[in-house]
Amino acid sequence: MSRQSPTLALVGATGAVGTVMIDIINGRESVPWGEIRLIASARSAGKKITVRGEELTVVELKPEAFDGIDVAMFDVPDEVSAEWAPVAAARGAVAVDNSGAFRMDDEVPLVVPEVNADKVGNPEHYPKGIIANPNCTTLSMMAALGALHREFGLTSLVVSSYQAASGAGQDGIDRLYAELEAVAGKGLGSKAGDVRAALEAAGLPVADTPFAGTPLALNVVPSAGSYKGDGWFSEELKVRNESRKILGIPGLKVSATCVRVPVVTTHSLAVHATFEREVTVEAAHKLFEAQPSIVLTDDPENGVFPSPAEVVGADPTYVGRVRQALDFPNTLDFFVCGDNLRKGAALNTYEIAEQVAAKLA
Amino acid sequence: MSRQSPTLALVGATGAVGTVMIDIINGRESVPWGEIRLIASARSAGKKITVRGEELTVVELKPEAFDGIDVAMFDVPDEVSAEWAPVAAARGAVAVDNSGAFRMDDEVPLVVPEVNADKVGNPEHYPKGIIANPNCTTLSMMAALGALHREFGLTSLVVSSYQAASGAGQDGIDRLYAELEAVAGKGLGSKAGDVRAALEAAGLPVADTPFAGTPLALNVVPSAGSYKGDGWFSEELKVRNESRKILGIPGLKVSATCVRVPVVTTHSLAVHATFEREVTVEAAHKLFEAQPSIVLTDDPENGVFPSPAEVVGADPTYVGRVRQALDFPNTLDFFVCGDNLRKGAALNTYEIAEQVAAKLA
Repeated sequence: MSRQSPTLALVGATGAVGTVMIDIINGRESVPWGEIRLIASARSAGKKITVRGEELTVVELKPEAFDGIDVAMFDVPDEVSAEWAPVAAARGAVAVDNSGAFRMDDEVPLVVPEVNADKVGNPEHYPKGIIANPNCTTLSMMAALGALHREFGLTSLVVSSYQAASGAGQDGIDRLYAELEAVAGKGLGSKAGDVRAALEAAGLPVADTPFAGTPLALNVVPSAGSYKGDGWFSEELKVRNESRKILGIPGLKVSATCVRVPVVTTHSLAVHATFEREVTVEAAHKLFEAQPSIVLTDDPENGVFPSPAEVVGADPTYVGRVRQALDFPNTLDFFVCGDNLRKGAALNTYEIAEQVAAKLA
Repeated sequence: MSRQSPTLALVGATGAVGTVMIDIINGRESVPWGEIRLIASARSAGKKITVRGEELTVVELKPEAFDGIDVAMFDVPDEVSAEWAPVAAARGAVAVDNSGAFRMDDEVPLVVPEVNADKVGNPEHYPKGIIANPNCTTLSMMAALGALHREFGLTSLVVSSYQAASGAGQDGIDRLYAELEAVAGKGLGSKAGDVRAALEAAGLPVADTPFAGTPLALNVVPSAGSYKGDGWFSEELKVRNESRKILGIPGLKVSATCVRVPVVTTHSLAVHATFEREVTVEAAHKLFEAQPSIVLTDDPENGVFPSPAEVVGADPTYVGRVRQALDFPNTLDFFVCGDNLRKGAALNTYEIAEQVAAKLA
């Protein structure tokens, strides 16, 4: 690779999303990068990971780690990003951040390339040197809503989520697996609290789970993120506020209910979307078919619709169950499934990084 | 018991809902019935079942089985009800039917006692001698919506369901248990189709499941009931049409998305309900607290909200996550869980039967 090729850093290379990010980089036909540098906490520094056939040594997160880096992707908790993305930017990198730390910052664009790639067209668009990647739940429906909005003018959204355990990180995945093993084969789920009792008997008390002190096996949990007052959880407010910012509709009306379900990976959303203009299923199908990052699976009569266990691991968003609301004008109901670790996190972050690289070239 | 006490028949006594019905009858402090007669198909006739301390022999479903019966509850498939409820009525019984056969018949009232008990006040209200029990998904939210509608005037509903396997009968329960055993402990759910492959390897091909040929373990399935055209499944249209009829709002606007989740029993619904008049969380809480068939569990900050594995087996509907929609006037979002075999089926049917008995007394 030439000296002029941009350089890429991945901060959080050994985490759940970081691991998927490396899969994505390894799976690309070609990449625009000269050096790729893996960065993680001191605990993981020194670890060897093979990227595109080359064994790389993970380096420790410190200011000098960003020297010579053009684009730094962050897949780390909010507080780590809050501290270190500005450090990377100060050293001359463009930070592409997958945490919640900067998403609602007016000087930080929130980008889904299919919807608002123009926001990374010019460094003036990101004066802090930081570009944010949306929350995974919001992201799952953005490609579909962006396509519909351009054509029909979105005015309101009522959304219910069916969110996977991995949205709560590797802890969430491990917990769901442990719970399933503890309840399988026991004929539980017909009496109040018997799932909870089985978990406690198996040495899996629920008090400290990532799921609000509630069993997730044989259950659904209407709680995601942290409590923000007036009955709302953070995840629900993110769906509202991030959708408004990404789509550029400050007055978009949004109500979201976020519910965790016993699925490992891939978020699903039931979307009720109202537009300024009349919208037909046929027109929506055409838009979805024209969008490379959407797979339309919509033949419900023959059992063809998206479901998370069938979609997980894929890059595109799967859309189906598209139908005209019977009683609400200019309104479509549809169901969407997207891998929350790929398009919902690593893939979209990487796509932003590639867009920035293209501008640098 | 006196000779004047009304007599009760239970048709489908050996099925999934019939079994719960017998639990309910056995659990009542007192019952108004003289004779209780258990009726089932020829295959189950002769079986002995203990009801309130007395061992009863199941009799075969035939016209004479209804002789001397005042109220006949039907917990059988649509086609059995369609044939036999009129036979019971012709023999002088009031048929209380839990199937879908008569729900939308203009001469058959569709009753949730908390909402429209007046519809069973007089035999003129049920000229065919038949009263229908609503679909379990619709029923789960009726007590809450009825209370709110009386006070604030309901105008529209956007509903997403999280429906339990037992909504598809004992086959649904058995299938979910078998699937869970086949996938537990295998670390599946991170690649498209690996759950399906594991089920097929375990001798559980999905083609003929009650869940639209789709795995339910580690998955959610946006398909419930039969396909009715224009993108809609029967369960979604039932939510719309039955809600309108029960609440007496012919122009109620409804969009429903019905999704099966890997829960054994108890349906959950995310409800977005808009009213004619302003509605506050405080006012809604007061109405719910005043309704004996509702349990309000709504302290999300402290992890208090309804979830199906924690409310299954209970008679009341559990309501929580009540919040004012941020962008929609006169609108509440809330989450409700109701045992689909109890209030959603057997309990409501039995409550109607008791109301009829009270009128006969």
